[in-house]
Amino acid sequence: MPTLYQDPRSGNCYKAVLTAAHLGLPLTTVDIDVTSGYTRTPAFLAKNPNGRVPTLVLDDGRILPESNAIAWYLAEGSHLIPTDRFARAQMLQWMFFEQYSHEPYIAVARFWMKFVPKEKLREKEHLIPDWHARGNAALGVMEDHLKKSDWFVAGHYSLADIALFAYTHCAEDGGFNLKTYPAVGAWLARVAGTKNFVKMTSA
Amino acid sequence: MPTLYQDPRSGNCYKAVLTAAHLGLPLTTVDIDVTSGYTRTPAFLAKNPNGRVPTLVLDDGRILPESNAIAWYLAEGSHLIPTDRFARAQMLQWMFFEQYSHEPYIAVARFWMKFVPKEKLREKEHLIPDWHARGNAALGVMEDHLKKSDWFVAGHYSLADIALFAYTHCAEDGGFNLKTYPAVGAWLARVAGTKNFVKMTSA
Repeated sequence: MPTLYQDPRSGNCYKAVLTAAHLGLPLTTVDIDVTSGYTRTPAFLAKNPNGRVPTLVLDDGRILPESNAIAWYLAEGSHLIPTDRFARAQMLQWMFFEQYSHEPYIAVARFWMKFVPKEKLREKEHLIPDWHARGNAALGVMEDHLKKSDWFVAGHYSLADIALFAYTHCAEDGGFNLKTYPAVGAWLARVAGTKNFVKMTSA
Repeated sequence: MPTLYQDPRSGNCYKAVLTAAHLGLPLTTVDIDVTSGYTRTPAFLAKNPNGRVPTLVLDDGRILPESNAIAWYLAEGSHLIPTDRFARAQMLQWMFFEQYSHEPYIAVARFWMKFVPKEKLREKEHLIPDWHARGNAALGVMEDHLKKSDWFVAGHYSLADIALFAYTHCAEDGGFNLKTYPAVGAWLARVAGTKNFVKMTSA
């Protein structure tokens, strides 16, 4: 059974948990507190030289970092990855959008505003307006898309939905107002209604 | 023949050009100056609501943004995407690493230091030390990997190499010193020696 090194508060880690649960795949989880510094220790850097969770370890010892690559590995051959060539590329398009235009603002705002002591947040406080501007731009792109489609790609639930759900559903922790994105809200409810859906452990 | 909307100075756009050239695929390119504001006009936002290049337009009008998704679409079924399940996930791992841990520092430093007028750069000057610290961390991860392997994944040239080559080969434009990464330097030369290799138009 593969082992997922995760911080249960991390949306990136939650993507792997959500994918495995939906597909009924067995997965062992090992919880790590990313604020403890453990991901920067030699023991952990031997697993993932980039020093981040999630990191997946297979039974034979092979190691796979990067949340969206882990979700892809777990979901290969399932209905979570469209078989059509263009739809598969569109799914990756949204997954790259998530890592480049969404996560660095929405997840980062949540991390600093929810999990970091107030006196430390002061160092980053000047960045909040930029996080909010760019995060709201990403939510706006999602809202426009979801006004026309129930799902991100191929008319069904896929890894694009899982990748984007991970930090969108808890965006209010970072000061975003999801009420201004009704199509996103309806889509969040659709995802929460998918088969074997599990909530984020410590949201 | 698909049409690529690109800024020829952009490494992200170059990934699609390099992939198409290597595979001998026909590709029309339309050049756009990203500093002109054109990618934020209604005409362009109708193509890509996220307002970025590269954007690929197929003959039937379907539109695909995101550099690594475009490269994936162009390369589907070719030797640039490994057939082994784990190797394919590892390839995506490096492509997500590129977009999350490499491009936001190495490409962004290059953009501001090479293409933006000196008086405008002053607004961002305080960010340069952070760009360099994080960009050098990414180059260090690449160096460690390339000390042990000629290519990023599966023992052969793949989209992982193309994605990482795009902004690594011109990292010195952003103030990085590639001489301190000899394994990266040897790999850059290997990529430049691949079949049908083309240089970036306006590097």
